[in-house]
Amino acid sequence: MQIIHTIKELREWRKTAGKVAFVPTMGNLHEGHLALVREAKKRADNVVVSIFVNRLQFGQGEDFDKYPRTLQQDADKLAGEGVAVVFAPDEKELYPNVEQRFNVEPPHLQNELCGKFRPGHFRGVATVVTKLFNIVQPDTACFGKKDYQQLAIIKGFVEDLNFNIDIVPVDTGRASDGLALSSRNQYLSEAERAEAPRLYQELQNIAAALKNGNLDYARLEAECVRRLTDACWVVDYVEIRHAHSLAVAHVGDKELVVLAAARLGTTRLIDNLEVALA
Amino acid sequence: MQIIHTIKELREWRKTAGKVAFVPTMGNLHEGHLALVREAKKRADNVVVSIFVNRLQFGQGEDFDKYPRTLQQDADKLAGEGVAVVFAPDEKELYPNVEQRFNVEPPHLQNELCGKFRPGHFRGVATVVTKLFNIVQPDTACFGKKDYQQLAIIKGFVEDLNFNIDIVPVDTGRASDGLALSSRNQYLSEAERAEAPRLYQELQNIAAALKNGNLDYARLEAECVRRLTDACWVVDYVEIRHAHSLAVAHVGDKELVVLAAARLGTTRLIDNLEVALA
Repeated sequence: MQIIHTIKELREWRKTAGKVAFVPTMGNLHEGHLALVREAKKRADNVVVSIFVNRLQFGQGEDFDKYPRTLQQDADKLAGEGVAVVFAPDEKELYPNVEQRFNVEPPHLQNELCGKFRPGHFRGVATVVTKLFNIVQPDTACFGKKDYQQLAIIKGFVEDLNFNIDIVPVDTGRASDGLALSSRNQYLSEAERAEAPRLYQELQNIAAALKNGNLDYARLEAECVRRLTDACWVVDYVEIRHAHSLAVAHVGDKELVVLAAARLGTTRLIDNLEVALA
Repeated sequence: MQIIHTIKELREWRKTAGKVAFVPTMGNLHEGHLALVREAKKRADNVVVSIFVNRLQFGQGEDFDKYPRTLQQDADKLAGEGVAVVFAPDEKELYPNVEQRFNVEPPHLQNELCGKFRPGHFRGVATVVTKLFNIVQPDTACFGKKDYQQLAIIKGFVEDLNFNIDIVPVDTGRASDGLALSSRNQYLSEAERAEAPRLYQELQNIAAALKNGNLDYARLEAECVRRLTDACWVVDYVEIRHAHSLAVAHVGDKELVVLAAARLGTTRLIDNLEVALA
């Protein structure tokens, strides 16, 4: 496994690499990331994993500076997965100019759900992933469903801008108690960690209600927010949306997704659950 | 020479095409376009020319509907130049959705110079060229210096978004009296056509003044506007700018470009001239 830090070397390697599957990450890898890598490995012999903490997608007051950088441990984990290349550019390599002048601008969806609470986040995601796609030039790229809105944004710009890349969604990895795996889980205190699985349980409650024919979306959302608030969560949103477009769900939609973001102490957790109605 | 109308067929052809040089156009080809094609031909055996009148880059009240569509004549001209593929998608092929949701958003330069008079134009250009780049996947692409601001926008997003494409600027083709070749010249009446070369003459006057040490940019610009107005032009702008960044020029800058846009009757003409000071 090679660790490559420059675009030039990556391009040189790419010339003779044949089919490539790509997993972009911000590092600090856990089992959820490794599931993406294993999925990528099924699609191409050559798997590239990028590790880059992208300043562009962090807002003011977010955790860019304290986001864990653990390149050596990450590389050790990836070496065991048969990864061909770890691409770990520094900030000057991806952003040589003082400011990023040209951006990939998503539609209004970027200001909804998580975007409402993280202005500029999805523009930053779309832009850095575009850059990484143009550098790595993969045939396939794997993204976790954990970041469901991110996945929708990426599928959207790949389609609208005609990137010739097959986007593979991968199911969310979970701890045995159901908590979605996330680098941010390590910020949780012991008590918070014990409380954290409630978020997924609440999504499952809504899914069960929907399947039982309760289609009063607004009430299901509001009751869920109340229960989480009662359990000391600070809720950003709980929303039932159309699964593919992420448009606000209408009664009669069959493919739904329930998405939530809420904070325990200073740690913001997100999760979601797809619900297919008969 | 193949004429290909669908993305799928183009991608199929691309798989085995080796090195490709690309010339995106809106058709209605003249000698200026053919100079781009000849430059492309020097860079790669396989030249792809796209012909697509891109609605996204036309403003309200602009000439999208009357823009000349002349595919058969264009193809005849290109066949003589050793072009491998003419890519001529219809609108549904490039814009299958009702609206283009994701765009490549240029920085403030998009609202200056021509952009001030054509809101959204350069966003539309950057977005469609990104799409075409992702479809054609060229190694090289040729653009005329006639559309100098467009060239700067394209060089900008290729750099910022890490497209692995060599952008080749090609000198402006001109009629014997100096008028820059343009599809829009055919809109000119006989009297307007006789008047039209004045625009380039005025740019040459400014260049001569600059080389003589007259660096009062604002005055040079204003005098030029006055002379054109006296000759019945309606001037959008005459500006002296830094040649690479297109930032407003400062005294001491050595690499300059003088850019102008002005209308004769209903026809809008643009031109520019690079000026290197000692």
